[in-house]
Amino acid sequence: MSLLVVGSVALDTVETPFGRAEDAIGGSATYFTAAASYFVHTQLVGVVGADFPKGGIEFLQSRDVDLSGLVRLPGKSFRWSGVYSFDLSSRETLDTQLGVFAEFQPRIPESFRDAEWVFLGNIDPALQIDVLDQVRNPRLVACDTMNFWIEGKRDTLLELLSRVDMILLNDSEARELSGDHNLSRAARWIQARGPRYVVVKKGEHGAVLFTPTSVFFAPGYPLEEVFDPTGAGDAFAGGMMGSLAVAGGLDDADLRRAVIYGSAMGSFAVERFSVQRFEDLRNGEIEERVRHFRDMMVFELPIPVNVNV
Amino acid sequence: MSLLVVGSVALDTVETPFGRAEDAIGGSATYFTAAASYFVHTQLVGVVGADFPKGGIEFLQSRDVDLSGLVRLPGKSFRWSGVYSFDLSSRETLDTQLGVFAEFQPRIPESFRDAEWVFLGNIDPALQIDVLDQVRNPRLVACDTMNFWIEGKRDTLLELLSRVDMILLNDSEARELSGDHNLSRAARWIQARGPRYVVVKKGEHGAVLFTPTSVFFAPGYPLEEVFDPTGAGDAFAGGMMGSLAVAGGLDDADLRRAVIYGSAMGSFAVERFSVQRFEDLRNGEIEERVRHFRDMMVFELPIPVNVNV
Repeated sequence: MSLLVVGSVALDTVETPFGRAEDAIGGSATYFTAAASYFVHTQLVGVVGADFPKGGIEFLQSRDVDLSGLVRLPGKSFRWSGVYSFDLSSRETLDTQLGVFAEFQPRIPESFRDAEWVFLGNIDPALQIDVLDQVRNPRLVACDTMNFWIEGKRDTLLELLSRVDMILLNDSEARELSGDHNLSRAARWIQARGPRYVVVKKGEHGAVLFTPTSVFFAPGYPLEEVFDPTGAGDAFAGGMMGSLAVAGGLDDADLRRAVIYGSAMGSFAVERFSVQRFEDLRNGEIEERVRHFRDMMVFELPIPVNVNV
Repeated sequence: MSLLVVGSVALDTVETPFGRAEDAIGGSATYFTAAASYFVHTQLVGVVGADFPKGGIEFLQSRDVDLSGLVRLPGKSFRWSGVYSFDLSSRETLDTQLGVFAEFQPRIPESFRDAEWVFLGNIDPALQIDVLDQVRNPRLVACDTMNFWIEGKRDTLLELLSRVDMILLNDSEARELSGDHNLSRAARWIQARGPRYVVVKKGEHGAVLFTPTSVFFAPGYPLEEVFDPTGAGDAFAGGMMGSLAVAGGLDDADLRRAVIYGSAMGSFAVERFSVQRFEDLRNGEIEERVRHFRDMMVFELPIPVNVNV
């Protein structure tokens, strides 16, 4: 049940109404593996600069992530800096310094090429395709993307779509990609371009899974304190892919359960800065949270006959 | 299982990307009873002008609504006119003419005063309180409100809150009323002012029920065509209260089921202009839709052990 992720490993400087974290470890592959590691052994492909802190590497090692695909190059690590609005509903990017990430050419180690489950984090779709050319026979390939690629590399992104089984993206990205404001129609439009499974992430409003034959809704976990939304989507993907890899199948039941585990892991990610929540998160807390999701979604039909009238 | 609603009966002129309806029957009490009538006999208290069309009255009669509390006064009916944005996510009010509604003083007929289930549609909170002074011993009182009263009659609205069991309001109203952007905290704030049950409507993102001990999420129904969002919230309330009245209880199971029936009725309301969808909606379609809600929300735990690894 090997799980491969290719994506960014970065240093984030984040300001939220609750404080500020400077050069904290982040990046899509970091959040993804931090979450996925609770389910399976994860293989990471990425690049860091000479300045990437020992503590970051040690954290990933502590999560039992296979780092043989993590290259360290002379130069600076990818750095992102942003500030969130008072209600955390939007954020402004203050600075992006690609550093060694500008030259990133994913090289998949031989020992990773038989990975059954593959997640292509949010990087240039040309690089995502390049990864697909290196893996042999995955059970499932899922990808993420963002508005930057939808606007700037649309054709390449559409080529990628024709080669993946699943895409995870947020609601505004689904609308922009399809040119349709209606989310159901947008998902059908995307499915027609390739991915059988479309997962639309809606932040505090939860996530929706569209399969060829069904729709599944997961609510956003009702946290009373959201500390730092950075990485929630990547932790969601890590929980989802990790859960799928453990179950080993792609039935509706597997996919739905995976969306719930993804939602749970995303909800943990935002409880602290950076990947800090995954430093002490216990398996029992994850199981408790997914049960809480179930408690928040069950109801009974039909209406009983009221005998008192 | 008598259900009483007090609210507006109006003539709406609505423009959406799909067309325009002129002087179509609308108003909170109209949408509410149109939906609730599929569950129980409904008692309506409201006012119309001399110009209110015979067809509107006949529609309500066809839904078996008790109109002994609907007063007709000389003058014009309440008229609202608005235009929706291309994606239906926002609307602009073009004109509001209160007409006879400006003088509305709800008089609850003697035969309505023992109503067990009472819904106070979105009108001046002073009038909502006035209704409460006229009913005798309701099982449940629920109310709606809007930003206009939150901003303009806050103290009266808070007095009302201390006297109701349930409030239905949308997410922006919950945030404005509580002064808290976090929806969970906002709901707790409102509960502390009186209503045990807070139902937050989030449009396409569904609805959330907060009880003293639990949270329940209902998704928005994934319609590919939304024709006219007017009245969705009132039809939601009608379905919810109607379902509660039929079941006759206030257990968690009753409340959750009612939120689903409310969501279903709200989703039907937007499929056509005005209350047109309720002219031919069949009970079987309602049952089919609530089963579809269940299909979109079920999942299995825990992760099965994958024997193939």
